[in-house]
Amino acid sequence: MKLYWCPQSRATTAVWLMEEAGVAYERVLIDIRTGAQAVDAYRAINPMMKVPALVDGEAVVAETGAICAYVADRVPEAGLAPAIGDPARGRYLQYLVFASSCIEPAIAQIFTKMEIPSGSAGWGSAERVFNVLEGELQKGDWILGDRFSAADIVIGAGLRFAARQFKLVPERPAFTAYLDRCEARPALQRALAISEAN
Amino acid sequence: MKLYWCPQSRATTAVWLMEEAGVAYERVLIDIRTGAQAVDAYRAINPMMKVPALVDGEAVVAETGAICAYVADRVPEAGLAPAIGDPARGRYLQYLVFASSCIEPAIAQIFTKMEIPSGSAGWGSAERVFNVLEGELQKGDWILGDRFSAADIVIGAGLRFAARQFKLVPERPAFTAYLDRCEARPALQRALAISEAN
Ligand SMILES: N[C@@H](CCC(=O)N[C@@H](CS)C(=O)NCC(=O)O)C(=O)O
Ligand SMILES: N[C@@H](CCC(=O)N[C@@H](CS)C(=O)NCC(=O)O)C(=O)O
Repeated sequence: MKLYWCPQSRATTAVWLMEEAGVAYERVLIDIRTGAQAVDAYRAINPMMKVPALVDGEAVVAETGAICAYVADRVPEAGLAPAIGDPARGRYLQYLVFASSCIEPAIAQIFTKMEIPSGSAGWGSAERVFNVLEGELQKGDWILGDRFSAADIVIGAGLRFAARQFKLVPERPAFTAYLDRCEARPALQRALAISEAN
Repeated sequence: MKLYWCPQSRATTAVWLMEEAGVAYERVLIDIRTGAQAVDAYRAINPMMKVPALVDGEAVVAETGAICAYVADRVPEAGLAPAIGDPARGRYLQYLVFASSCIEPAIAQIFTKMEIPSGSAGWGSAERVFNVLEGELQKGDWILGDRFSAADIVIGAGLRFAARQFKLVPERPAFTAYLDRCEARPALQRALAISEAN
């Protein structure tokens, strides 16, 4: 597999994923600071001109959540996704999607200080999103309880970025403890070292 | 399977999905206009207090995109998802996620007339999102080319709602033709009739 990435970007989530998956992969640098994402060869891989993107033989996939879902299913031996037929797959997919459909807009809402008419937004409100996330993380170490999954990679990476670097996440003990657990994982440590070294 | 839904809401996407899947399912009405979503029994199913949500034996799943991904994999005979190992699965997952991570915020951006600093948003800009979508839809009838999939249900339903009811989507022939093709599907017609009748 080839991962198109750039240091200090959302692509760190995908690097963390690949390090958890434990498969051989090649990192191809797309330097978004010099506009390398707008070149035709890369637009054929991701017309949105964004990193990360992944090529696996003939398969091409962009969008961080989709890359995580794809690799987790493709490398079942890494145990990053409950298999089709496992009842845990329901909540797994829910929280994988929740990262982009609810957590991201909640963080954007805090950042822009946007007022939302009650109930009208697909994520409800930042308050509702963080209460739900806190409730889940109080039940166990990971979003599925005692089982780490690719949903933790998408949620953990997004939360870490917004909380540690921008203080855009409400400070709650459950979040701090969760991010500490994420940061204790050797695969995330390797991903951060790769990002730093480039 | 039990689908928790409400007429005239985003749950119509999930009704369309169930009608395409062709499996027996029970619809359980959660009347969000009377606050039925805030009752404890429903919060156990979806702590976000949103419809739709799906229960399949012991599996529970909320978030429209996740419900679509879940059912499409669970009912392979409906042909709504390329299987794991099929190269088309990459783009399939990408566009399933794209609906909530890029199209929804693009529509919100048009609705709020928000200005976005170039490149900083995860969806780039509404302009970029609709150009990419148009490019894909010019290549074939469906987002994967000639193959209809659950990604078309999420994208088609979202686009239809924003375009036909609120004129929040730029008028382009490729979008109109795509929505016409979606509306010609008997499963969407049944879903709309179910929504109307309740
Ligand atoms: N929705 C995308 C967002 C990815 C994204 O925004 N990537 C940024 C880097 S953090 C990028 O490539 N920006 C370059 C540009 O917009 O031109 C995802 O989840 O993967
Ligand atoms: N992110 C959710 C959004 C679902 C949603 O916003 N549902 C609305 C109806 S259109 C709802 O249940 N609102 C009730 C409330 O917020 O209390 C999804 O994609 O399924």
